[in-house]
Amino acid sequence: MNFCNQCGNPVIHRIPEGDNRPRYICSHCSTIHYENPKVIVGCVPIYQDQILLCKRAIEPRYGLWTLPAGFMENGESLAEGAARETLEEANATVTLGELYTIFSLPHISQVYVFFLSELDNLDFYPGEESLETRLFSEDQVPWAELAFPVISETLRNYFSDRSENSLKIHYTDHLFDRR
Amino acid sequence: MNFCNQCGNPVIHRIPEGDNRPRYICSHCSTIHYENPKVIVGCVPIYQDQILLCKRAIEPRYGLWTLPAGFMENGESLAEGAARETLEEANATVTLGELYTIFSLPHISQVYVFFLSELDNLDFYPGEESLETRLFSEDQVPWAELAFPVISETLRNYFSDRSENSLKIHYTDHLFDRR
Repeated sequence: MNFCNQCGNPVIHRIPEGDNRPRYICSHCSTIHYENPKVIVGCVPIYQDQILLCKRAIEPRYGLWTLPAGFMENGESLAEGAARETLEEANATVTLGELYTIFSLPHISQVYVFFLSELDNLDFYPGEESLETRLFSEDQVPWAELAFPVISETLRNYFSDRSENSLKIHYTDHLFDRR
Repeated sequence: MNFCNQCGNPVIHRIPEGDNRPRYICSHCSTIHYENPKVIVGCVPIYQDQILLCKRAIEPRYGLWTLPAGFMENGESLAEGAARETLEEANATVTLGELYTIFSLPHISQVYVFFLSELDNLDFYPGEESLETRLFSEDQVPWAELAFPVISETLRNYFSDRSENSLKIHYTDHLFDRR
């Protein structure tokens, strides 16, 4: 950040009065420009014993498989965002189920949230950000070609919980890992 | 937003190619300035049968009672943010427990996340954003003087779950309310 988005003058990087960390502050109008973590929302779209995955048509991880997910937008809820991303990436409509996995990724200032969901029908097809959309049963999942660790972990949790007939929320935070 | 924070030239508000909603785009360097929901993290600090609340020394809701909570910062996890806010607002150190309540508030583009936690000791006192910090048992909670609905709902959930000996995650999303 170099300039104030309110008045267009240069910003400086310093700790505001009463604060405890540096922020970008306008040298002219004194607006403080806070930067905060972003939320990524997505679905585990389920059809019988299979899961819908999307092959990424965009970087990063072009050509690898992912659950439909993307940046939460202003004005929507977590669940609405998850359904919207599933529609955008796979043209798939789902009935949303429970909040399922939550990941804190402080090294990239992101929070991931996945919902369980049931595919309403099989009329899905790749959206602009997908090369391919396909159902996979557990033994078909391309584990070595999944796009992100949060995808592998969500799928592992799901198949494990399903085998125990006990679906439960999973929260992953390195603060707890260190204990 | 009026100016590009990268190059200082005016932004325009239109739908970028391949997108489906208007964004602020720089007229000069074409940077797209996305705006996304913010996450507020906080704690339910528990000591025996009591909860620690903070009387707000800032607007909005100056003088009303709240659980310690605030905007999640870049570079921290949800749990780290919750502990940091508890330290900042009440100078209280806690041992974090489970993720407890999650609220989607799309009308203000916020996501609230509260963790259960145990107060490590009674050496708490008001931080700069609090007028007073105090422990309340269930029958002492100032229900009519709580700062936000997410605070009342988190406390109601906690006392209700505790009476049933069954603490469980609560997710509140208007998408599900409408069903």
